[in-house]
Amino acid sequence: MATFKAWAAQKAKDTLQPYEYTPEPLADDQIEVKVTHNGLCHSDIHMKDNDWSCSTYPFIPGHEVIGNVVALGANAEKLSGLKVGDRVGYGWIRDSCGFCEACVEGQENLCQKGYEGTIVGHHGGFQNRIRMPAKFAFKIPEKLESQYAAPLMCAGATVYNPLRIFINKPNVKVAIIGIGGLGHLAVQFASKMGYEVTALSTSYNKKEEAMGFGCHNFVLLKEAQEKVPNYFDLIINTSPYDMDWKMLLGLLKPNGKLCLIGIPAVEIKVPVMPIIFAQKTICGSIVAGRSYTNEMLEFAAVNGVKPKIELMKLSQCNEAIEKVLANKARYRIVLESEE
Amino acid sequence: MATFKAWAAQKAKDTLQPYEYTPEPLADDQIEVKVTHNGLCHSDIHMKDNDWSCSTYPFIPGHEVIGNVVALGANAEKLSGLKVGDRVGYGWIRDSCGFCEACVEGQENLCQKGYEGTIVGHHGGFQNRIRMPAKFAFKIPEKLESQYAAPLMCAGATVYNPLRIFINKPNVKVAIIGIGGLGHLAVQFASKMGYEVTALSTSYNKKEEAMGFGCHNFVLLKEAQEKVPNYFDLIINTSPYDMDWKMLLGLLKPNGKLCLIGIPAVEIKVPVMPIIFAQKTICGSIVAGRSYTNEMLEFAAVNGVKPKIELMKLSQCNEAIEKVLANKARYRIVLESEE
Repeated sequence: MATFKAWAAQKAKDTLQPYEYTPEPLADDQIEVKVTHNGLCHSDIHMKDNDWSCSTYPFIPGHEVIGNVVALGANAEKLSGLKVGDRVGYGWIRDSCGFCEACVEGQENLCQKGYEGTIVGHHGGFQNRIRMPAKFAFKIPEKLESQYAAPLMCAGATVYNPLRIFINKPNVKVAIIGIGGLGHLAVQFASKMGYEVTALSTSYNKKEEAMGFGCHNFVLLKEAQEKVPNYFDLIINTSPYDMDWKMLLGLLKPNGKLCLIGIPAVEIKVPVMPIIFAQKTICGSIVAGRSYTNEMLEFAAVNGVKPKIELMKLSQCNEAIEKVLANKARYRIVLESEE
Repeated sequence: MATFKAWAAQKAKDTLQPYEYTPEPLADDQIEVKVTHNGLCHSDIHMKDNDWSCSTYPFIPGHEVIGNVVALGANAEKLSGLKVGDRVGYGWIRDSCGFCEACVEGQENLCQKGYEGTIVGHHGGFQNRIRMPAKFAFKIPEKLESQYAAPLMCAGATVYNPLRIFINKPNVKVAIIGIGGLGHLAVQFASKMGYEVTALSTSYNKKEEAMGFGCHNFVLLKEAQEKVPNYFDLIINTSPYDMDWKMLLGLLKPNGKLCLIGIPAVEIKVPVMPIIFAQKTICGSIVAGRSYTNEMLEFAAVNGVKPKIELMKLSQCNEAIEKVLANKARYRIVLESEE
């Protein structure tokens, strides 16, 4: 009988500790993956601590998982074209209904029946092996090194999706609020798509690096109203804090879109005048479906989009979590398996 | 020297009184129109009363104007293809820069230099003649009777625009909040575009008429959460009141759009979870540019979209205003010139 070796929290707020368990039998539609890398996402920590009241314990984090296929259920190859040895990645979504309008379009992040989350009621990637539905395994393009592919699985998908769904023309002016794990990837994708990219930040601390990631402009948030009014077609807000939404809407051109991907508060207060009289839009985006995730990986491979990471060992996962909580990760921590 | 005979308010809150004046000379890019019909829009009343702090006096209302070309400035035919005798209409916009991105696309309602409003700093259509830029005259399709064409110029454009810019596929489920001057046209356009249309209303008073306009369903707002959750692709809110925005977002499918065309308040409080996790959008729309206004008129002519109107004389304009303020117009008042 197989035994999987994982890092798990036994209850909310606990640290992660070694945990062994006997997995469910490999289902017909599943594959077994030998895990090599996990990106560490702030959502892993929220879920470990049950911040969103949907965690189950023992809780195993990990939803930016890279590894190699070591076994396939009876139907898995037919469902996915995968073979033993293939290098695959998993992101935030592990399964979806497959037949609703959104799923049929490959936009499973909007599954009308509700998708299944990789770490919501299921064991994530912080283990030596993982059994997952074959359908949501993404083949990793050869050019992408595993350690860099890991953060793309959630963070990459999260920033790529709004760039694809809220832009439909060239020469677009994009602003990215927050140059962090999400923002430093958003800047790279947007600039390599050919858009003019402006970082909006609270300080000049990350200016040099932001320009290195591909920013054309770097503007302090507190000076934005004066310096770039009515300027952007799309603002992607990665910040988890409440903002001056009226000011931000003022930075948009008519028809511009303010897209939330950070989760700032339960409710926000927004002025209706710019929404009605200048057709400005408040919208949001959550990870990506299979269509844009595949596209994003290919785009990253072709264009050299590369997360800036700190590589640590999976056994250092608690130290890594401390670093993320202290806002000291630059810009994404990837945990390498040691087996 | 020409004298134009108008109905004007001499100051905010005044009734309209006969007013004669000598117009500015006909400019090279202008046409002179003999006015036959004016739709009466609530915005005329807001502007008469300086509710938006941008009115000038004497103030002449009228931005749903139908009439016949009686004279052309030196360049007007070249600019517009119009000839003496042509039947034309004017809406909310009388001019725009013409060269910004939005204007080049025929979306002059989003002109980045700011368009000129027909009754903002200019004399509207409540007069026997009007001199206007030829460029923003819309030729009225033969099939449309003038009295029915008038309300299309603003109300029709206002509801047509969001149906065109926020929908890009068939089989869409549209809800219209408020079956009034705007809503009864929105229902007609949406149903004749082939969409499933639901009226969301505060009472059953207008149910029979709404179904006659083309609604497939009629749901009370207070029962909507229970009866049609996660149901609509697009909700068009014509109501000028504050609403339960969280509930309304809950009526949208993932990726659904809540479009404001009524102006409910200065600020609204909206929940971010449905915006981020279900990619729901809060957007708005204001009248339409030349592209969609022309398209709307043609669509109305081909498909028999017809405002339900009450025909009164222009000299009854004060009585008509009282009726609109008492919310007794069904659904749009059109004022016929007597000359």
